[in-house]
Amino acid sequence: MIDFQQVINSIHNDLKQEIDRGLVANYIPELSHIDANNFGIHLKLLSGESFSVGQAQAPFSIQSISKVFALSKAFQLQGNDLWQRMDVEPSGDPFNQLSLLELENGIPRNPFINSGAIVIADILVSGLENPKEDFLHFVRALANDQTIQYNEAVAASEKATGYNNYAAANLLKSFGNLQNDVADVLDFYFYQCALEMTCEQLTNAFYLFANHGVCLQNKEWLTASQIKRINAIMLTCGFYDEAGEFAFEVGLPGKSGVGGGIVALLPNQLVISTWSPGLNPKGNSKIGMQALEAFTTKTKLSIF
Amino acid sequence: MIDFQQVINSIHNDLKQEIDRGLVANYIPELSHIDANNFGIHLKLLSGESFSVGQAQAPFSIQSISKVFALSKAFQLQGNDLWQRMDVEPSGDPFNQLSLLELENGIPRNPFINSGAIVIADILVSGLENPKEDFLHFVRALANDQTIQYNEAVAASEKATGYNNYAAANLLKSFGNLQNDVADVLDFYFYQCALEMTCEQLTNAFYLFANHGVCLQNKEWLTASQIKRINAIMLTCGFYDEAGEFAFEVGLPGKSGVGGGIVALLPNQLVISTWSPGLNPKGNSKIGMQALEAFTTKTKLSIF
Amino acid sequence: MIDFQQVINSIHNDLKQEIDRGLVANYIPELSHIDANNFGIHLKLLSGESFSVGQAQAPFSIQSISKVFALSKAFQLQGNDLWQRMDVEPSGDPFNQLSLLELENGIPRNPFINSGAIVIADILVSGLENPKEDFLHFVRALANDQTIQYNEAVAASEKATGYNNYAAANLLKSFGNLQNDVADVLDFYFYQCALEMTCEQLTNAFYLFANHGVCLQNKEWLTASQIKRINAIMLTCGFYDEAGEFAFEVGLPGKSGVGGGIVALLPNQLVISTWSPGLNPKGNSKIGMQALEAFTTKTKLSIF
Amino acid sequence: MIDFQQVINSIHNDLKQEIDRGLVANYIPELSHIDANNFGIHLKLLSGESFSVGQAQAPFSIQSISKVFALSKAFQLQGNDLWQRMDVEPSGDPFNQLSLLELENGIPRNPFINSGAIVIADILVSGLENPKEDFLHFVRALANDQTIQYNEAVAASEKATGYNNYAAANLLKSFGNLQNDVADVLDFYFYQCALEMTCEQLTNAFYLFANHGVCLQNKEWLTASQIKRINAIMLTCGFYDEAGEFAFEVGLPGKSGVGGGIVALLPNQLVISTWSPGLNPKGNSKIGMQALEAFTTKTKLSIF
Repeated sequence: MIDFQQVINSIHNDLKQEIDRGLVANYIPELSHIDANNFGIHLKLLSGESFSVGQAQAPFSIQSISKVFALSKAFQLQGNDLWQRMDVEPSGDPFNQLSLLELENGIPRNPFINSGAIVIADILVSGLENPKEDFLHFVRALANDQTIQYNEAVAASEKATGYNNYAAANLLKSFGNLQNDVADVLDFYFYQCALEMTCEQLTNAFYLFANHGVCLQNKEWLTASQIKRINAIMLTCGFYDEAGEFAFEVGLPGKSGVGGGIVALLPNQLVISTWSPGLNPKGNSKIGMQALEAFTTKTKLSIF
Repeated sequence: MIDFQQVINSIHNDLKQEIDRGLVANYIPELSHIDANNFGIHLKLLSGESFSVGQAQAPFSIQSISKVFALSKAFQLQGNDLWQRMDVEPSGDPFNQLSLLELENGIPRNPFINSGAIVIADILVSGLENPKEDFLHFVRALANDQTIQYNEAVAASEKATGYNNYAAANLLKSFGNLQNDVADVLDFYFYQCALEMTCEQLTNAFYLFANHGVCLQNKEWLTASQIKRINAIMLTCGFYDEAGEFAFEVGLPGKSGVGGGIVALLPNQLVISTWSPGLNPKGNSKIGMQALEAFTTKTKLSIF
Repeated sequence: MIDFQQVINSIHNDLKQEIDRGLVANYIPELSHIDANNFGIHLKLLSGESFSVGQAQAPFSIQSISKVFALSKAFQLQGNDLWQRMDVEPSGDPFNQLSLLELENGIPRNPFINSGAIVIADILVSGLENPKEDFLHFVRALANDQTIQYNEAVAASEKATGYNNYAAANLLKSFGNLQNDVADVLDFYFYQCALEMTCEQLTNAFYLFANHGVCLQNKEWLTASQIKRINAIMLTCGFYDEAGEFAFEVGLPGKSGVGGGIVALLPNQLVISTWSPGLNPKGNSKIGMQALEAFTTKTKLSIF
Repeated sequence: MIDFQQVINSIHNDLKQEIDRGLVANYIPELSHIDANNFGIHLKLLSGESFSVGQAQAPFSIQSISKVFALSKAFQLQGNDLWQRMDVEPSGDPFNQLSLLELENGIPRNPFINSGAIVIADILVSGLENPKEDFLHFVRALANDQTIQYNEAVAASEKATGYNNYAAANLLKSFGNLQNDVADVLDFYFYQCALEMTCEQLTNAFYLFANHGVCLQNKEWLTASQIKRINAIMLTCGFYDEAGEFAFEVGLPGKSGVGGGIVALLPNQLVISTWSPGLNPKGNSKIGMQALEAFTTKTKLSIF
């Protein structure tokens, strides 16, 4: 029997001493002011118990982690029709997001690369009555928490400076793979990425991915088969060009964001979230990656 | 002594029978209605004589040919500082405009690839007091013709549908290689490309490129050294990914546009323009390319 | 309780009617004569039971499946030093094996892409006393079967026509990532790929990957942590540019070969092999992929 | 009237003081021992006069300059059939020789990129009775000099270490664009590149490219149209990824080699060769490029 509280305490204790905490993302001005010393872990077992250490109740910008929620909602709305507009293959390279899109005729490599996430946003803008409100309600329902909010300043900051996303959206539009106006899709997308959640909220919201589609409140949102597919995409594409490395070192499906959050899960058993804002050179939380590697090493838990 | 009128008559006569005239550009809706049977040639010798055949006095959308005027104006304004923001190498590939820009950190390969032309437009927006008016006056002065105009409908058409250019401009902006707002730069750029000129006007406006920088009205706009450089860029980069082919088949510096125009020149001797709206698969006027190849074959004139 | 014999019988029965069986690989002349109607499945539970249907005892050319054995042996010899000479990231694209190697300075993307497997072969040529004999003994020991053999004609066929592998090996050599002579490394590599095994033998030989490194004969060859890493690489890189698709549809770590074999496994529970020589356009067994998808759908077994 | 002797003396005098002479090529061991202070210029006017300064009569390894002779011989043998096996477009990038070949299905971008030159070598191996002897006789005849020789040690050195060329040749073979054995083609190719010539011999041998195909001895080897085409390819592809820069700065068709030689020509007027072994980062002679730029600046001679 593993003493999970002791495991996460020990990991937290070891890593909080780490002097090199990585670099806080500065390409979104609003995110660059976060204190790099923040470090929280939250773990929930499917058997019901929860464990916290550090800043696990502090909200942070979840950024790309939101792509998992958006994909889930779009999958729920469209089923497998979704895959006519994007693929499910890893992208490999970080440096060539637009190159890939150009070479592959406007079909994004997967739903977690920015261009794929923008196509997902387009689907939600078409499919939801009040896209921003409805999406927020969906995430609140998954987490069973009505306090979750968008951070308006972060959304505005990305809107003003997110030139690379404007480039990707216009390129998608030029290939006919965007139905709505670029401005409308990106407005939604920038809000989606500007969601603020705590480690605990994230853990709760991801409960259904470890539980065959059934959330904490016992509602089935997606089929077991759909959940299996989303988990597979998280494993193969969830960590930019470090996806192979994460599978290799950690061995769990998961998703990271440039706000420094990571959430990972072991089907049937647990969900775990970490937050530490400093990033490694590939854009994933430096301390968070180390924490999850230590967690699977100490507990010997892995899908492999 | 070559009988130039007879040469262009004979070429015009042969090629106007050609059944496969290529495809009129349809990605700009306003251009797609042009009659593919239009075909004009205008030739001017530096010794003073001019020769015309076919629709040489009909105005058409010069599109990318305008990039030579824009480069000339920017070169005049900035001198060699210009080359800090772009290179002078051929691009080779058509399919990967944005890929190249992404791989090469936002430095366009040359001033005639769209991304390079957008940087040139940015320089003109910064450097001209009334960019659109001033640029129009510059072209009118070169051609010694006050009737040259922008086609507002074509400019509006590109503004509404030029997603690929929006993508390129935003990517440049993300790399810090655009000083003005994307919207302002592209507004200028779409007007620039929407200039309408006849073969005769084009020939006159290009006179200075065959005459060491001195225009028809005997005014020196650029130095002989700058003109040599612009001619070199036309030869190596003037025909998209068919630049090598054009140098190989025709052997003259020149520039084409998707409106079906081509202008080429032999330093110290002549300028020649053709217009035939149907394009070959690489985006250059099909009949125009054949006409220029026939012209240099029949006259044995070439820089090589 | 699942009736596994009934499950594989039913899958075999459904798929053997399939008219479009894919194309038998013809780039290796020796392989092109195989009858496309061969179709076998072998399943072994860690609890001890085995199940067979069709041509599960017929030997076939395992080709790239051998890369898992070679990686395992090299990992055993070198431990994590291995990863200084190659990465563990998916490659994404099929069309650009050499391009990736060139762009990434001779460091193969992963050990299953041909260039990576050639580096592994180089390690074995350096590290084994009698490379071909020792490697054969290793595979025989894993499978607990002394009858496994190389097919000399297949090895000779690849040696005579494997120009792409010569290109990759020479490119590796030019980057200094090959210690032995190209000819020696490829001689070993072509033999390695020319191993012939049956579905049953493959299943037995892969037992240790589902059993934390301990083989059928109860010998521990690799640590649980090394096995976890190899399984992760199988999942993210085991199916060329269809790795994401296989994870998405099947949800098991596995490896395919152009001989039409596939082997997959569920840690702690089972190993399953299929053989059907016809390939889909991405180079994986068409019927084999369908069989494994059906198997996980019917049994609801998956790592996700 | 230009005093050419004074012009080249002055250029030689200025540049021989230059402290940073570039780096002598070290990837071919035999070439790495050359003294970087060598510097010669030879100029021949079509009117008959010749001018020399510095080490203009010292033999050096002409390396890639030999590709112009090989192309000429192959063009003579095959006429325009040649272009079914390669293109005439600039390559742009240096870093991705094999990538381009892979993306473009084994059709080299042009005859001066290594892969293209290897296809030309294949044509000569098929088309010449005694390839090495016949090719040597061809070059001797063009230069009107029977003393020109291959350097056996340089050829052997490249044979032992030219892995990148082995990679390219095997990749060509895998695409079916090589008719002879890789070993035979590269044996010829390494000898071809190991030709040793002086600036004066090179200038004489290139006479026909400035003289519509007629050599010093008044023999017509190629038609005026073929010469025009070869000159066009020199201009657009003769200087690796610095071809645009050379056209821009110098404005003459030419060809460089990693031995530090450059030869350039102005049709109807002159041929000029330089030798200085130190290379700039793009692989062209540093001092040679500067010398030719100074020559065209001082004399105002250029095709543009």
